[in-house]
Amino acid sequence: MVSVSPLAPKGGFPDLPVIEGVSFATAEAGVRYSGRPDVMLARLSAGTSIAGVFTKSATRSANVLDCQAKLGLDSSAMAAIVVNSGNSNAFTGKGGVLAVQSVNAAVAKALGIAENRVFSSATGVIGEALPFERITAKIDELSNNLCPDLIKNAAHAIMTTDTYAKGAGAVFDANGGQISIAGIAKGSGMIAPDMATMLVYIFTDAKIAQPLLQKMLTTLTNKTFNCITVDSDTSTSDSLIIAATGKSEAAEITRTDDPFFEALHKVMRDLAHQVVKDGEGATKFVEVQVLGADSDADAHKVGMSIANSPLVKTAIAGQDPNWGRVVMAVGKSGAKADRDRLSIWFGDVLVAENGWVSPDYSETDAAKHMKGEELLIRVDLGIGAGQSTVWTCDLTHGYIKINADYRS
Amino acid sequence: MVSVSPLAPKGGFPDLPVIEGVSFATAEAGVRYSGRPDVMLARLSAGTSIAGVFTKSATRSANVLDCQAKLGLDSSAMAAIVVNSGNSNAFTGKGGVLAVQSVNAAVAKALGIAENRVFSSATGVIGEALPFERITAKIDELSNNLCPDLIKNAAHAIMTTDTYAKGAGAVFDANGGQISIAGIAKGSGMIAPDMATMLVYIFTDAKIAQPLLQKMLTTLTNKTFNCITVDSDTSTSDSLIIAATGKSEAAEITRTDDPFFEALHKVMRDLAHQVVKDGEGATKFVEVQVLGADSDADAHKVGMSIANSPLVKTAIAGQDPNWGRVVMAVGKSGAKADRDRLSIWFGDVLVAENGWVSPDYSETDAAKHMKGEELLIRVDLGIGAGQSTVWTCDLTHGYIKINADYRS
Repeated sequence: MVSVSPLAPKGGFPDLPVIEGVSFATAEAGVRYSGRPDVMLARLSAGTSIAGVFTKSATRSANVLDCQAKLGLDSSAMAAIVVNSGNSNAFTGKGGVLAVQSVNAAVAKALGIAENRVFSSATGVIGEALPFERITAKIDELSNNLCPDLIKNAAHAIMTTDTYAKGAGAVFDANGGQISIAGIAKGSGMIAPDMATMLVYIFTDAKIAQPLLQKMLTTLTNKTFNCITVDSDTSTSDSLIIAATGKSEAAEITRTDDPFFEALHKVMRDLAHQVVKDGEGATKFVEVQVLGADSDADAHKVGMSIANSPLVKTAIAGQDPNWGRVVMAVGKSGAKADRDRLSIWFGDVLVAENGWVSPDYSETDAAKHMKGEELLIRVDLGIGAGQSTVWTCDLTHGYIKINADYRS
Repeated sequence: MVSVSPLAPKGGFPDLPVIEGVSFATAEAGVRYSGRPDVMLARLSAGTSIAGVFTKSATRSANVLDCQAKLGLDSSAMAAIVVNSGNSNAFTGKGGVLAVQSVNAAVAKALGIAENRVFSSATGVIGEALPFERITAKIDELSNNLCPDLIKNAAHAIMTTDTYAKGAGAVFDANGGQISIAGIAKGSGMIAPDMATMLVYIFTDAKIAQPLLQKMLTTLTNKTFNCITVDSDTSTSDSLIIAATGKSEAAEITRTDDPFFEALHKVMRDLAHQVVKDGEGATKFVEVQVLGADSDADAHKVGMSIANSPLVKTAIAGQDPNWGRVVMAVGKSGAKADRDRLSIWFGDVLVAENGWVSPDYSETDAAKHMKGEELLIRVDLGIGAGQSTVWTCDLTHGYIKINADYRS
């Protein structure tokens, strides 16, 4: 039995608001795991706007291709999301396409909806045939058990090497009524999202047209899920879908600066952080802040270069305030940098400035910061106004242990 | 005591030819290590052509910057190379520049040569002041002990976390006489060269003008040292210097298709492989062949994406023929790829074709190949004629152990 990540939220799975217009069900289909739920179904009421972002991988899964094709279609009819864990249905050839169609058709039939309103995802081992009959055999059971307050069960059903279920939500007062948001996510390896990450589902009762919802989602993905990395490996199945049922009594959202944007931002950031905190083998959560870059894009490059460096990540695992490796990662990033203008902090401790270790540097203070569970590495390139913040975890024996044995 | 890599050449350090015009000496300066030589000096006779390639890191060391400035200068006078291990003199500010100047001046004075003909390198911890007085105190001793047949000692003096000294050489009959080549290198972490790698010194008695030597070196670096990776981290000190004394009786080399080119290629490839085989924690040496790509550049991208993937490398450590992770690495590489045209082999075993596992695939055969020490992963993208071969090692607990503890 794998123990829960030491970085897991202390209070366990949060109390999430029930979203009007959304119901969930889960089942044990035995796709790969036994004795635990491994399929989840969500039904979305008519009028739900659905937006999504997906992996840019050139070898993306049959499910991802199918979802992408459906996003632009008419969005007024009832819809569904169906997800299995244990097998990603990626690199499964024509059989993979058939699997997606079969599962979608079973869901469409059971719920009485159109197939082009069924969005399916799969996560787990790559390159093995998905035994989709085990899933289709459970669709009737699932559709009979749909219930609005089962999002926690859904979060559990989509887990693979995750050590805890991930959820985040928000409720806020808007013009004319309250708006609620509830989201779930799963990690935990192959995390270096290139568009979206792993599997993430967010539900809200907000009234919002699909194009505006898609625009907000894309903007916020670039600030949240595209700013995390566990191991620099990009999944073939990354999918983030948001469904807005429009059931709230609040007025329709029509502007990108609506308070809904910030509420959604917080939910997405929270879920992204939870994915990092459940990174395979993780014992430290690290925020990397980069400022003073030539551009925001350059700052992001430097941040990801630090966050992906195996030498930086092993130093963090060893609680070593090794600024030399941070300098190395800045140097290799490809971003504009000047060794002699660089400043580096671990937490509040100024480690390096003017091309060398700071005269005030205290190794004792830096070492103390490194002993914490949540660390901050701040780098000022001293060149321009570009900024970026990214999040990662350390690289430990646990990662090797999980991945030298597990066929994912 | 760290044990020698299981991938080390079975016969130990090779018998290298003595290069006329080159002498070596080593000393124990106690820069960081004690009880072992940590400085090496090489004197090069007048008329030696010197070419070099260096890291492109934006935070490269004072020594690298100094060497790069000297490469274009007059090359007729006697020259020297001085190298210390234990401290890389990188990110050491103005003090680092002073350290380089002081060591160079001491060497120039002891050998009676110009300072702009002294090339210095340093390797080891980043960001700590180089105690250069310990080196300058040993320069007289070094210059008194110079001797042509001490290249093996030099290979030992430049080691840091290396578990064995690395050497390769060649002797071949050329027009008018024999030509000899002898080279040494050190690794072993922070290996993802971006121009050259770590420290490599190659000596030859060939007669060849500096511009042609530089051209050959740059071409061959792109086929050898720029095609290896241990951990995707690019050093701040990567330096590869070649010195051609012209003492051979063979005719001057004037064409890039001279047999010297292939002889040099073999020596460089051998040294590059030895660096990978001493990768931190390595237990497997892996050749990744990519063919059928849209361009050679795309093939290289795919090769490096596979060779740098922590998930592929941990699967190799676990002896798992996990083609799914190879598919993932192809997908994230950024190169043009089509899932359904992709073929993958482990050794001679065809694993996947036409977008899925091959009907003839034998897991038993693939698993047998993975148990070997030298592995081959071959990927045919099925799109064009672009090709590339890169080399890497597996990612094991040994890497974590070395890097969570060692301040490099």
